[in-house]
Amino acid sequence: MTIPALSRLSLNQITTEKHSLQETVDACAREGVGWLGAWRHKIEPAATAAKVIQNAGLRVSSLCRGGFFPAATAQERKQRIEDNLRAIDEAATLNAGLLVLVCGPAPDRDLVGARAMVVDGLGQLVDHASKSGVRLGIEPLHPMYTAERSVVVTLQQANEIAALFSAATVGVVVDVYHVWWDPQVYVEIARAGRRIFAFHVSDWMVPTNSLLMSRGMMGQGVIEIRRLRQAVEEAGYDGPIEVEIFNEEVWRIPPQQVIQKVRECYLKAV
Amino acid sequence: MTIPALSRLSLNQITTEKHSLQETVDACAREGVGWLGAWRHKIEPAATAAKVIQNAGLRVSSLCRGGFFPAATAQERKQRIEDNLRAIDEAATLNAGLLVLVCGPAPDRDLVGARAMVVDGLGQLVDHASKSGVRLGIEPLHPMYTAERSVVVTLQQANEIAALFSAATVGVVVDVYHVWWDPQVYVEIARAGRRIFAFHVSDWMVPTNSLLMSRGMMGQGVIEIRRLRQAVEEAGYDGPIEVEIFNEEVWRIPPQQVIQKVRECYLKAV
Repeated sequence: MTIPALSRLSLNQITTEKHSLQETVDACAREGVGWLGAWRHKIEPAATAAKVIQNAGLRVSSLCRGGFFPAATAQERKQRIEDNLRAIDEAATLNAGLLVLVCGPAPDRDLVGARAMVVDGLGQLVDHASKSGVRLGIEPLHPMYTAERSVVVTLQQANEIAALFSAATVGVVVDVYHVWWDPQVYVEIARAGRRIFAFHVSDWMVPTNSLLMSRGMMGQGVIEIRRLRQAVEEAGYDGPIEVEIFNEEVWRIPPQQVIQKVRECYLKAV
Repeated sequence: MTIPALSRLSLNQITTEKHSLQETVDACAREGVGWLGAWRHKIEPAATAAKVIQNAGLRVSSLCRGGFFPAATAQERKQRIEDNLRAIDEAATLNAGLLVLVCGPAPDRDLVGARAMVVDGLGQLVDHASKSGVRLGIEPLHPMYTAERSVVVTLQQANEIAALFSAATVGVVVDVYHVWWDPQVYVEIARAGRRIFAFHVSDWMVPTNSLLMSRGMMGQGVIEIRRLRQAVEEAGYDGPIEVEIFNEEVWRIPPQQVIQKVRECYLKAV
C-alpha cells in the first residue's frame, strides 16, 4: 500500500476552527495543501470567500454542511429545506461540487419517522442540486450522535437512502471516525462504489473522554485508516482526502503548525 | 401496549454499585423486586452469595460478565478462557442460568482478527456451559465502546455469531442502550427470536456528557423503550427485564430509594 499523493490532501476547516478563512488558506498555501473543506459559518458571504480561496490558489473539496431535515412541524421542515437550498447555492458559488449532509436528529423518540423525513427532505433538494452542479453527500455519523445530530448512522443506511436518487447527484461521505467500528463497513464501502463522494480522516483516541471533542490526528488512535483508504480506492474513489479534527487542543495551535502536523500524519498513517 | 408485570423486574447490581450484595438484596426484597442481575466482583465467593440471595427470596436473572476474548498472545487468550470457565461455574452456583458476555476490544487495530478471536473463544466455552446448565448471552455493546470494551457492536453481528452455535446454549442480550440507534434493530430482534436470552433497560440522556456514566432511568431520555420491549416480546421473549444504570449520581442514592425510582420508571416507561 503506497502513501497517498499529497495533492489529494484537503484541510477541513473545522480543524482550524479558531482561525479566519484568510489565515487558514494562507497557511494551506504556504504548506502546499491545495484543497479546503469549507464550513458555512466560516465563509460568509460566499462570493467573497470564493475569491479569498481562489486567490490563495486553493480549491474547495466540499462544503459542510446541509441536512438537519427532521423537525416537529411542517413549517420547520420547510425552513430547513430553504436553508439547504441556500447551502447548495453557496457550494456552487465556492465551486465546491459537494455539499455534505448531516441529516439531523429526531424531534421526538420516533427514529423511524425521522428517517422518513430525511428521505423526504433529500427529495426536495435533488433537482436544485443537480441544476447547480452540486452533489449531495449523505454522511452517516457515529451512532453516539443519534440523539443529537443524525438519525443516519450506518453506511448501509446511507447507501440505501442514496440509492433512492440519481447516482450523479446523491452519494455518501465515508468518514473513518464515523464508520470504523462497523462490522459491515467493507461490504458497504464496496457497495457504495462510485457513490463515494468524499473520504474524511481523523482517529479514535483511547481513552475517549468527550463524545464531540476527542478526535485525534491520524495514527494517534486505533482506526485502521490505511485499510479503509484502500477499500474506498478499490471502490473507485480517487478524490480529495479531507482531514477533519474536532479537538480543542488542536484548535489552540497556530494554523501553520496544525497543517504541518496534519501533513506529517497524512503521509504516515493515511 | 400494557405495562410489564412487576414480577419480571430485575435489578442489575451495577445500578447499586456502591452497596453490598446484602444491602441490595434486602432493599429488593423490601420493595418487591424478585430478580437480581449479579456482577462477579460483587458475589465473591459465589456459594455464600447464592445463600444471601436465596435467603432474601430473590432469583438471579444473569451473571455479568464473561467475555473479553481477544488478546495479543495465545497465553493471554487461554487465561481469558479459564476465567470464563470459572464465570460459568459461578453462574451455575448462583443458579443464574445466563452468563452475559461482553466480548472485549481488539488488542491492536485489527477488528476483523479480534472478531475471529471472539468466535474462537466462544467455541471453547460452549460444552462446559451446556453441561453446567448455563446459557451464554452475547451482548452487543454500543459502537462507542468498540475501542475499549467490545468488538461486537450490532445485534446483527451478535446474531450471526450466535448462529454458529446451538440455540439452546448461545444467544444474545438485547440492551436498549446499546441497540436503540440501529436502523436494523427491529429486523434483528425478530431474527434473534428465541435466542433473546435477556432484555436490559435504561435510557439515553440528552446531552450525554460521559461515554460510560451518563445512563438515565427509563423515561428520562430518548429511547423508544416500550416499542423495543414490544418487539422482543413479539420475538418470543418473556423473561426478566433487567434495569442496568451506570450513573454516579444514581450510585450516591441509598439502594431502597434507587429501587423505588427504578420500579416507578419501569411501570411508566418500559
